[in-house]
Amino acid sequence: MTTYVLVHGAWHTGAEFEPVAAAIRAEGHTVHCPTVAGNRPGDSKRVGLEEAIASIVDYLAGNGLEDVVLLGHSYGGMVITGVADRVPERIRRLVYWNAFVPNDGEALNDLVPPHYVALFDAVSQASPDNSVVLPFPIWREAFINDADLATAQAAYDVLNPHPYATFTDKIRLSKNPAEMELPKSYLYCTEDCALPQSLGWHPRLSEKLGLFRLIAIPGSHELCFTDPGALAGGIMKAGRD
Amino acid sequence: MTTYVLVHGAWHTGAEFEPVAAAIRAEGHTVHCPTVAGNRPGDSKRVGLEEAIASIVDYLAGNGLEDVVLLGHSYGGMVITGVADRVPERIRRLVYWNAFVPNDGEALNDLVPPHYVALFDAVSQASPDNSVVLPFPIWREAFINDADLATAQAAYDVLNPHPYATFTDKIRLSKNPAEMELPKSYLYCTEDCALPQSLGWHPRLSEKLGLFRLIAIPGSHELCFTDPGALAGGIMKAGRD
Amino acid sequence: MTTYVLVHGAWHTGAEFEPVAAAIRAEGHTVHCPTVAGNRPGDSKRVGLEEAIASIVDYLAGNGLEDVVLLGHSYGGMVITGVADRVPERIRRLVYWNAFVPNDGEALNDLVPPHYVALFDAVSQASPDNSVVLPFPIWREAFINDADLATAQAAYDVLNPHPYATFTDKIRLSKNPAEMELPKSYLYCTEDCALPQSLGWHPRLSEKLGLFRLIAIPGSHELCFTDPGALAGGIMKAGRD
Repeated sequence: MTTYVLVHGAWHTGAEFEPVAAAIRAEGHTVHCPTVAGNRPGDSKRVGLEEAIASIVDYLAGNGLEDVVLLGHSYGGMVITGVADRVPERIRRLVYWNAFVPNDGEALNDLVPPHYVALFDAVSQASPDNSVVLPFPIWREAFINDADLATAQAAYDVLNPHPYATFTDKIRLSKNPAEMELPKSYLYCTEDCALPQSLGWHPRLSEKLGLFRLIAIPGSHELCFTDPGALAGGIMKAGRD
Repeated sequence: MTTYVLVHGAWHTGAEFEPVAAAIRAEGHTVHCPTVAGNRPGDSKRVGLEEAIASIVDYLAGNGLEDVVLLGHSYGGMVITGVADRVPERIRRLVYWNAFVPNDGEALNDLVPPHYVALFDAVSQASPDNSVVLPFPIWREAFINDADLATAQAAYDVLNPHPYATFTDKIRLSKNPAEMELPKSYLYCTEDCALPQSLGWHPRLSEKLGLFRLIAIPGSHELCFTDPGALAGGIMKAGRD
Repeated sequence: MTTYVLVHGAWHTGAEFEPVAAAIRAEGHTVHCPTVAGNRPGDSKRVGLEEAIASIVDYLAGNGLEDVVLLGHSYGGMVITGVADRVPERIRRLVYWNAFVPNDGEALNDLVPPHYVALFDAVSQASPDNSVVLPFPIWREAFINDADLATAQAAYDVLNPHPYATFTDKIRLSKNPAEMELPKSYLYCTEDCALPQSLGWHPRLSEKLGLFRLIAIPGSHELCFTDPGALAGGIMKAGRD
């Protein structure tokens, strides 16, 4: 059986992956859902991308994890790309779930449309600690579009302010994802409109992986809330050999 | 519960929405299926876009309708955009179902490929009353591609000649859809090839809405005939708060 | 009922279509699965595109087949386009299943990204007979991405080296597909990443057909192995009048 490590996106913690993890564990696999530095309760919101990456590198080492299928969601794609650069020997396959794919020197903000950068700039500057939150209407309409209002609201209530430096820091990689020798998959939820689909996750970002396996399933950017079982199924198709 | 007003596309009347309306009513909602001026039995085929819009504005007022989810299909997107500009206070949310999204000063013909304009020009000039009809092969292959031949033929038989001025008149809006403060959804049938998908409904036209909710379901441009229940389900996901 | 002739893609033979054919026959249709010249056991691997096309023309004539729905998969799109040019009078409808659509003077290699051409060039030059094989990692990740590993391996084991001249020969057509008067369908498996989706099957190649019927179903480039029943369903929707 396989060891999965699921790395959440911005504003989330590992806890939101637990219903998904349960469905994967039911098939006999081992699943870890760590929370990235900057999103753990009590963390400084001035954490940068390098610290975020290091926190998952440390998690793998601290738990003696090897041969893992390492999944990143959204911002988590920045994190797992850095982890794959630092400790490729611990990884069996990378899975990007509607996730950013950076080349060396790119920041998350380089990969989103200008209206998001302007929004994040404004929100972070109004915060006491350079953190960003997502306005509810954007969350409800563009991130969790497949939910009913109660689910959208309940999910929004568990989000935490995100350390903005992790969006503006440029990643440092010794090689770009397309050149990494690890097997790679892109799990694409086809109704995801968190990025405009004309400037979206797939194929714009997925194709930066070079050779990769595409798995496509219906659902929004936040399928972890709206259908954890379907997401678990997609993850296992993306993560198997 | 919600009040839905479903505005049909070119060549249709409200009657073709009745099986869809029945499935939405079965969930407890109220549904209206008015027919736009120019498509009602006996209407002049020289109706223009402004009259078409006014007929739905009048329908809302005449029936005292407020807080409505206003859906437009195809050409109906031209109509509901105009209605939203004239009487935004009556509308809770706009839903575009594989529909045109015009900015101020645009005509439907500005949003379709040149080969359609050429076809419509030729057909309307050959008509006695500046109306257009759709040749059956285009209807069968590109509009109702998910039907069997008998369904395609039966649906074609209920179509009515469409007033061409509503395609060539430029819409007058006080603000473009992206600037309208109403919540907006785009319901996208993914097999719709009535417009070439390289120059298609989504994301090309949907993204003119600014922030919007995407709901995607399988089916053709004419899912109202081929699977009214599935369409009703999509409408309710697009239309809820 | 309808007579279907299913023309396989590169590296395949007609035998791989037999489970699909069985599902179509179960609905009362007649199905032929010929193997194209160059892929039959014992065939020279120096066969060119013209011979490949001629082998299917001969098959239709030899079996007295008329009024056929002629389907081509992948490279098979090159073949059926040539057949349609040579003997249109035998064909009721063309169906392209994630298939190449060439205009007069185009080779398959003109329709794929440069990295494939470079790979094929290198592999064919290293072969004794100007044939190409597909490296297993590309097959597993990009062609049969929806399979488990055992299915991917078993399917790979039945592939045969492909005559490379059929990729480099430019097709000779008296008219391009868009001008052919035959009804045409494009059956699109939406998870197909054998071509990059930014430079992919649909809509890039499908729209070269002019007016065509789109049928879209989930699945990879090799759905014939992973879900023959679903593929058969799609073929019958694409192939009916």
